Amino acid sequence: MTNVCATKELQGRTYRCFFELALSVMGGKWKPVVLFHLGQTGVQRYSELKRHLPEVTDRMLTRQLRELEADGLITREVYRQVPPRVEYSLTPQGLGLFPILVTMRDWGARYEAAMGGARVVCCGSEEPLKDVDLHPRYLPGGHEGIGAHE
Amino acid sequence: MTNVCATKELQGRTYRCFFELALSVMGGKWKPVVLFHLGQTGVQRYSELKRHLPEVTDRMLTRQLRELEADGLITREVYRQVPPRVEYSLTPQGLGLFPILVTMRDWGARYEAAMGGARVVCCGSEEPLKDVDLHPRYLPGGHEGIGAHE
Repeated sequence: MTNVCATKELQGRTYRCFFELALSVMGGKWKPVVLFHLGQTGVQRYSELKRHLPEVTDRMLTRQLRELEADGLITREVYRQVPPRVEYSLTPQGLGLFPILVTMRDWGARYEAAMGGARVVCCGSEEPLKDVDLHPRYLPGGHEGIGAHE
Repeated sequence: MTNVCATKELQGRTYRCFFELALSVMGGKWKPVVLFHLGQTGVQRYSELKRHLPEVTDRMLTRQLRELEADGLITREVYRQVPPRVEYSLTPQGLGLFPILVTMRDWGARYEAAMGGARVVCCGSEEPLKDVDLHPRYLPGGHEGIGAHE
């Protein structure tokens, strides 16, 4: 019999198992997409993220980014220039979710096939299932490149 | 630039990325706990699951189990005897989520520590972080043991 774990609270989240904490932090309609995208692209400006998520409203995306930042999963860096440049990237905690998202993606693809395939509702391309490359910035030594985003 | 993927629908779920599908299927307050527990214990009767989840109501647990079954993640086996015996176990799809839950658990533990630790709200023990053993029934050849649950 597995023991029942204590109920804990962290940043307004209540959970008993650690994977509940993980699911709570990474869940949300746009958060996993943002994390996955940042893992691949390294650094993104707000407008670049927005372009990748055409269906999200500014209000929604801003809110999700603020929550991800408050939860310590992404960093928001403001460069004082005119107009100001704001860039987002993964923190080490956010980076730790990237391989989990990759295995979830692979599971999702197998699951979709096992369930007989999905119905395409709207426009877009087939999701590529090639190996996902983590951006070099996140590889050991890669943090040297911070700010070198063109 | 990553391409935007088509919006798809599967069993009433709308998603674009495969990991959104995965999160949607495995998410829910009790579902990951049930999946994780079944992975470790192999087969569980309803009463055994209930004992492991003292806070869940019968109505809620029944609903979560039905959804997990409808989504093809768990199997519900009824043995005609008096009183009838009902047992739950993981399907191959549900089994595929087990290692993901394990990595999420490990991430959650690191995250909790990185955020300075959590506040214990209620009774229970510390979550053990030892290696998690998948029940032998789910190992290659282990399905021979189906029904051999005492």
